[in-house]
This record gives sequence, structure tokens and C-alpha cells, in this order.
Amino acid sequence: MERAVSIGFAGFGEAAYYIAKGLRQPGIAGITAYDINTHTAGRGDIIQQRAAESGTRLVETNEELVRSSEIILSTVTANRAAEAAEQNAPYLGAQHLYADLNSVSPGLKQSIERTIAATGARFVEIAMMAPVPAHGHRVPMLAGGKAAAEFAEHLAQFGFSVEVVSEDVGMASATKMFRSIVIKGLEALLTECVLGASRYSAEERVFASLSESFPGIQWKELADYMVGRVVVHGERRAREMEEVAETLRSIGIEPIMAAAIVKRMDWSVEAGLKERFKGSAPRSYQEVIDALAQMSAAAD
Amino acid sequence: MERAVSIGFAGFGEAAYYIAKGLRQPGIAGITAYDINTHTAGRGDIIQQRAAESGTRLVETNEELVRSSEIILSTVTANRAAEAAEQNAPYLGAQHLYADLNSVSPGLKQSIERTIAATGARFVEIAMMAPVPAHGHRVPMLAGGKAAAEFAEHLAQFGFSVEVVSEDVGMASATKMFRSIVIKGLEALLTECVLGASRYSAEERVFASLSESFPGIQWKELADYMVGRVVVHGERRAREMEEVAETLRSIGIEPIMAAAIVKRMDWSVEAGLKERFKGSAPRSYQEVIDALAQMSAAAD
Repeated sequence: MERAVSIGFAGFGEAAYYIAKGLRQPGIAGITAYDINTHTAGRGDIIQQRAAESGTRLVETNEELVRSSEIILSTVTANRAAEAAEQNAPYLGAQHLYADLNSVSPGLKQSIERTIAATGARFVEIAMMAPVPAHGHRVPMLAGGKAAAEFAEHLAQFGFSVEVVSEDVGMASATKMFRSIVIKGLEALLTECVLGASRYSAEERVFASLSESFPGIQWKELADYMVGRVVVHGERRAREMEEVAETLRSIGIEPIMAAAIVKRMDWSVEAGLKERFKGSAPRSYQEVIDALAQMSAAAD
Repeated sequence: MERAVSIGFAGFGEAAYYIAKGLRQPGIAGITAYDINTHTAGRGDIIQQRAAESGTRLVETNEELVRSSEIILSTVTANRAAEAAEQNAPYLGAQHLYADLNSVSPGLKQSIERTIAATGARFVEIAMMAPVPAHGHRVPMLAGGKAAAEFAEHLAQFGFSVEVVSEDVGMASATKMFRSIVIKGLEALLTECVLGASRYSAEERVFASLSESFPGIQWKELADYMVGRVVVHGERRAREMEEVAETLRSIGIEPIMAAAIVKRMDWSVEAGLKERFKGSAPRSYQEVIDALAQMSAAAD
């Protein structure tokens, strides 16, 4: 693929938009997208505005999308990833490279691979390892599958940051999922820790003691940051951890910690903390503790 | 207390023994202990052997213990801490300093303080922050209560490492408990992480990704160590985390993560991993994964 390449997005939500914005450059023949919500009131307006802004041409069918594109990036919602592959499959052929960028389980990525491979198209699983709005098309990606190296090499010229992890599909998404047990788990642990410790004004001592065990971490600052993430992104994290829990169940492992993380994140949603902070991040865990105390006092 | 001081242990288990061993030194007038199991078959033999080895005189009643001691260290099992205080109380007076070293909740420490303070004796809560067998009488301790400073200053001459955290009772034990949510939680998270990731050979990638977020931690080495701790100490950790969960419930906080840690630790017990490794620590998490696979294959 030395000549200009055409890119298509199956689904044109936030991730697709931020990636597309970075693709208006030499070597890209065109950007096309198909989104089932293009004509939905409200969401459709946002899609059309974002398409205009990023130079993306919106089409009306999967067929049009596939016929206009050599590389297709699937960026639908996680629960629609399999459906998107099936709906595009009838039009795919050996000339296509189909990359699934959705946050889905290793097993589902493998199932989608079978759908795509049956058409003669090459398949790549992608795990996006950081938030797309912050990084755009340069978001760190892990790639898996026999076409992963081709995908990585070809898109590097446009600034994509793709690390090939395996010729087998599954490892990239497994890496993302099992990493998140630790990261989101730590968020949930620190939240429960400060909820309890603050009742005894013991947080500073707890942080000091943790620093003796892990001197490389600024525990107070980490608690401020992570409790804030729970407040702002609790809902999304809960749904992501449900996927992780489901993946563990599918391989015969009881998702004990993963299920608890879902509950701790859902607690934050039910407590109404996001609304209390109007969607912006609290500056410290102490602000969250204070807010909870005020909300509790107001409820009495 | 410039002259030699007499020390008494209420309960003479492992912790008491390792502390007593370090106390055979000038300035200690004598070491006495009362343990209800002194004449129990088996356990009694160990108690008598340890007493002889550490120069501790075993007595037959709480009254004898208290009358022989100026400083009384309560080192019973956690579920007997309140009972021990009540049984010693009738003999305590202003000449006594009573330190509770047991791993119990802040609320229980406060309740014990009331029992002791009513006798005129001074009370100190102690939270031991590391395993006693490894440190002996130099084990790092946090101390709370109005007599904490006196306790710390007086015992420093014998090598005790006591940090006074508050004149109020509760903060020291709260620090230990809420620290353990994070430490034992991380053990449980890493265990669940490698159980899942190993099915996709994704652990190395997960560790690499975690290192980008937390470069101060050697994640592979930490997983090796922590999964090993779960295998060897799962049972004890489960019971300790039940205390933490109960403490959270008592202050109106649902112990979501704490309860999950109990379950993950109990899973390790039920899986029979400790027996499999004959009580010694596995050298790596991989050994644990391999052992589980073999046990599962053997069960089929």
C-alpha cells in the first residue's frame, strides 16, 4: 500500500472522531464513516458536526462504507462489535483490512476474527491503552493477529502508535482487561481505604505506612487522583469491569475482585457524586469525603 | 520508672514469645506470662518450652500475672482481647500500664480502653505493623492513648520501636486496618490478574503496561511475591480482612473490597494451594498457575 489509502469507520462516536481528526494528511485518500445514529435526533447532529469538522464523509449503508475503504476501523459500542462485523462481512474481500478497536473480551475478538477471516479480509485486534480524546490518533494501541504488523507499519506513517503483541488474536485485549483489574482495582481499594480511614483521621498515617512499603508512589496524590477518577468515570469503569468479570467467568475463573470493583464503582454512581461535582474531577479525596458527609447530613 | 521494670504477658503465643526473647536484658526485673493453654496437651508443651527458652515465668492466674507486673502486654488471640482485659481488670491499679497489642478494630480498642481506664491503670493501644517473628521485640509499633508517649519512651531503652500517633485510642489500629485494605487488596488483585492473564500468555504485557503507569514498581517480582503470600498466608489474611470488613460495617460503610479480599484469600485456602506447596512460599506466580493446572488436570 504505497499509494494513498482510504479509511472507513464503522461507527462514528467519540473515539472515531478523535482518530479521524488526526487523519487529514497526505497519504490518506479519504475518510468515510457509517453510523446507524446519523439521522437520530440529537446524537445525529453531533455525528454530522464531527464528520464535517474532521473531513469525514458519512454514508448510508455498510456496503457503501466497505466499498469506499481499504482499512476499516470498527469503533462502535462494545455490545455492537460482533454485529458490526457481521453486517460488514458480506462486502469484505481480500483487498480489505478490518481492525476491531472496541473494548471487548479476548473471546469476542477471536469470534469476530473468524467472521472477518471467512470473507478473505485480513483482521487485526486493537486494544486502545489510553483515553482517545487525550491522544487522538496517536493513542497507544496494542495489536494482535497475522495482519497486525502490516497494520502497524502502514499506519505508523500517519502517527499511529501501534505495538504488535502477537500473531494470535486475544492477547492484546487480554492485556488491556487484566491490566485494568489492577488499575481500577487500586482505584476501588484507595476509595474504600480513605472512606474508612478518614473516620479515624488515620489517612496520613496510612499513606506514610504505604510509602514505607512502596516508596516509589506518592500515596496521598494517588488517592486524590484515583478517588477523583472513580467519581467522574465510575459508571464507565463499572461497565468495563463487568466485561472483565464476564471474561473471567468464560474461562472458569470466579471474578471475585472484578465483581467487587463493579460494585464499588456503581456505589459511586448511586451516591450521586458525579452530579455533586457537576462532572468535573474533585481536587482531592478529602473533597469527596466532605461531600459525602454533607449529603448524608442533608438526608437526615 | 528509672528502676528495673517487670513485664507481664496476657497470653503467651508466638508474638509474646518473640517479644519476650528480646527482653532478657538489664533493666527488666522479670518476665511473667499467663496463658490459659499452659496445661493443654500439645500447645501447653510449646508454651512451656518457649517460656523456658525466653526466661519467662508462667503463672496460673490473671491475679498472679497482674501482681507480678508493672507493664502488661495483652497478646491473646484477637477474639479474646476484650475478655482478657475484663479478667485482668479486677487486679489492675494506678501502678499498671496495660498495652493491648492484638489486631482488633478501633472500636474494640476503645472499648478495652474503657475497661482498663476504670481501674485507674493507664492504657495504650498498639498496632504491630510487621510480622513479629521476623522482628522480635523491635517490630515497628504504632501507639495511641494518653499513656502512649510514656510507653514509647520507657520501652525505647530495650529496643522497642514505638511511634506515637495520637492521644486518642483508635487511630493506630485504624492505620493498620486501612493500610491492609490496600496491601492485601493488591495481593488479591494481582492474584486474579495473573489467573486471567496467564490464559492468554498476556502477563508480561500486563506487567510492562503497569510499569508505564507505575515505573517505581517491579510488577513481575511483586506478583511473584504477593501471589506467594496469598498461598502461604491466605487463611490468616482472610480472617484479618474479616475484621476490617466488620470495622467498616460498624461505621456504616459497605465493605465491598474488603469482603472480596476475604473471598479471594479463602479461595486460595479452598484450592489447597498451601498444602500443595507444603507451607513454603512458591518461588513465582507461574509455579502457582502450573500447580493449579496440574491439580485441575488430576481432578478430571
